[in-house]
Amino acid sequence: MSHTVEILSVGTELLLGNIVNSDAQALSRELSGLGLNVLYHSVVGDNPGRVRAAVALARSRADVLVTTGGLGPTCDDLTKQTLAEAFGRKLVFHPECAQGIRCFFARMGKEMTENNLQQAWLPEGCHVLDNDWGTAPGCAFEADGTYVVMLPGPPSECLPMFRERAAAWLARLSEGVIRSRTLRVFGMGESAVESLLRDRMNELTNPTLAPYAKEGEVELRITAKAPSVQEADALIAPVEREVRALLGELVYGADVSGLEQVVLDAARDRGLTLGTAESCTGGLVAKRITDVPGAASAFKGGVVSYHCEIKAGVLGVSQALLDEKGAVCAQVAEQMAQGARGVLGCDLAVSVTGVAGPDPDDRGHPVGLVYTALATPDGCWVKELNLASPGARRDRIRTLATNHALDMARRWLTGLDPTGQSVQRGWTD
Amino acid sequence: MSHTVEILSVGTELLLGNIVNSDAQALSRELSGLGLNVLYHSVVGDNPGRVRAAVALARSRADVLVTTGGLGPTCDDLTKQTLAEAFGRKLVFHPECAQGIRCFFARMGKEMTENNLQQAWLPEGCHVLDNDWGTAPGCAFEADGTYVVMLPGPPSECLPMFRERAAAWLARLSEGVIRSRTLRVFGMGESAVESLLRDRMNELTNPTLAPYAKEGEVELRITAKAPSVQEADALIAPVEREVRALLGELVYGADVSGLEQVVLDAARDRGLTLGTAESCTGGLVAKRITDVPGAASAFKGGVVSYHCEIKAGVLGVSQALLDEKGAVCAQVAEQMAQGARGVLGCDLAVSVTGVAGPDPDDRGHPVGLVYTALATPDGCWVKELNLASPGARRDRIRTLATNHALDMARRWLTGLDPTGQSVQRGWTD
Repeated sequence: MSHTVEILSVGTELLLGNIVNSDAQALSRELSGLGLNVLYHSVVGDNPGRVRAAVALARSRADVLVTTGGLGPTCDDLTKQTLAEAFGRKLVFHPECAQGIRCFFARMGKEMTENNLQQAWLPEGCHVLDNDWGTAPGCAFEADGTYVVMLPGPPSECLPMFRERAAAWLARLSEGVIRSRTLRVFGMGESAVESLLRDRMNELTNPTLAPYAKEGEVELRITAKAPSVQEADALIAPVEREVRALLGELVYGADVSGLEQVVLDAARDRGLTLGTAESCTGGLVAKRITDVPGAASAFKGGVVSYHCEIKAGVLGVSQALLDEKGAVCAQVAEQMAQGARGVLGCDLAVSVTGVAGPDPDDRGHPVGLVYTALATPDGCWVKELNLASPGARRDRIRTLATNHALDMARRWLTGLDPTGQSVQRGWTD
Repeated sequence: MSHTVEILSVGTELLLGNIVNSDAQALSRELSGLGLNVLYHSVVGDNPGRVRAAVALARSRADVLVTTGGLGPTCDDLTKQTLAEAFGRKLVFHPECAQGIRCFFARMGKEMTENNLQQAWLPEGCHVLDNDWGTAPGCAFEADGTYVVMLPGPPSECLPMFRERAAAWLARLSEGVIRSRTLRVFGMGESAVESLLRDRMNELTNPTLAPYAKEGEVELRITAKAPSVQEADALIAPVEREVRALLGELVYGADVSGLEQVVLDAARDRGLTLGTAESCTGGLVAKRITDVPGAASAFKGGVVSYHCEIKAGVLGVSQALLDEKGAVCAQVAEQMAQGARGVLGCDLAVSVTGVAGPDPDDRGHPVGLVYTALATPDGCWVKELNLASPGARRDRIRTLATNHALDMARRWLTGLDPTGQSVQRGWTD
């Protein structure tokens, strides 16, 4: 029988809405990956009575309890005391943890106040989870058939602590392995992908196939459970082939961080360099590309030509064209991309110009009208996009425009028509 | 007596970690702002038995129940049925909702499938919350002393639905008004701010004063409860004065969206234009500035000079300097900022060059070493930063570097020393 998990997060700041519960999301992914079935998330404030009641409830409805938060050195930090009491364990001083906390402060070059040593008190007989990312150690123990894992709250500590420390301790609860592979799809909406695949998704049980909408893209996750990695992967492979056969060139990658990574990898493989010219995205395309460590191997740089003066003066867009048509038109997008190729000395350049909103531009172009272009040694392509929709505000329009610009580069680099079949072919140089 | 709230989110995608529960965060802020006391968040999957049990639990421990998710047209969407049953209400067809759903599809230019009309079945006698941002209407009703509000799951619908529809319905539960004012602080860490203000924070009860760390900054929120807006604001004002007296120029704004907004507003007020020159931040500074609607009123553009070729060729950084010292030094930062002023024709330019990681640069400069510079009509300033810390990865280093660059501009624009007292004065032109 598969184990069931409750994630209990302790922290008044979550209930006030000051922070989002990203720990619960990250741990849910990890726990599901171990084959454990997360059934509940709950959040309570720094209140001993409510924490105690939440622990009792969790024990009654799940057999693995993972807590986040409340392990720090202040009087608000009461998770440890409450859990220890609930499971009938004393807190005992762990000198090796105290030493670890002292070393952490020494490494940071900071003075340690004595209250930090409270963090070295942990439930008797627990398995200590050392914290290399902060000061509060975590712990894990089994009591009366419940498996308890306690992790610190800050996301920069919680997730690495889980991966590097807690996962190994929990792995024994998992029967076999869970593997998943995520295909990334750009150019078709979630509902269209879902209706195309609905019958297969309903039929499949191992592996499962599930779609997720994400920042203007769709992820298709294939997840298999099997006694070994090899057997799980063998279950996944035919479903991946089937999805790729259906969606074709819309599948831009598998287990990748995003379009930017695929573009960078493809450019590097072909020994080509990249550049950007951005108006309404204001640097977001370049930022996305340089989110990827090692981007310098193919990315040379970009120009954010927010004002028309910069479009004409730096990128060499025709002033007459700007005067006649304004900044939001196909020809300006094309000249921006070509200008960027020249100014930056790169092989490929993408450009974006459009109206991100909240208001139409001064020529009355509507919010969401965006042109993206790609300049290459072989010619230049332009796409006209209408990215408006009731929920699409400035940030979403900028994200979608960025995806389209990157996808044009991805398509050209992998030998496809840069604009896709659904969009008109642009100019060539 | 103040009302207590549980937010119950229904959706297996939350338990799989596919999405983060941003609804719970957004609603918690809004509910706290109405003076309601959020005591619990809980998440369950699309399972009738577990939703039923979660509703029973919520009724037993809170008197306001706000649900998110499960209002859509598919068979997974079972929140409405379960809640109606739990509170002994029939679902009845609301023709005016059906009409609203048809209009939504017409507005989007899309075909409506018949299953969408399931969304027009709502609990008998409820207050309908129209959804202008999607298809599923929400609803609100009171039963047996529990106040129930049901909202759709997608964040782009949930938050506007709450603000524009549900808040007015819930306002009658609130006694008096809650007002808060958020002071934004840059240049001092959260623990230092906290230790400076700890005694006052502990003394204050109305208004309260609370610090929150956020993306390399600190927010100080002053929250007052009073019978009227005027009385609440009168409670807040003296505490704001007190905090400003203590933190001085580190307080960069109140109720603003971030440093970028303050910089843009100050530049516009003084009739000055801005530009950027970025290496390791790769466009993030420009992106942050252009996140602000209306940025074009002061922001002209930027150059992302990721490769040294662009630093020399576009920004005019000395090739001899780059050959001798590499890209990561104070003089290169200075020449980038000055070059950007010239190339972009702007009054002020900020620049960033450094090592964002994960690896040291090819000259062995450590991860986290960053130089930011500001070029102005009055001269140029440079700051050297060490942004490394155990939890600081690439994205955090880039965020911190961006904050420092923006803060230099903010300081100069408001008549302060751009580098702050703690950092050496740079070169002048």
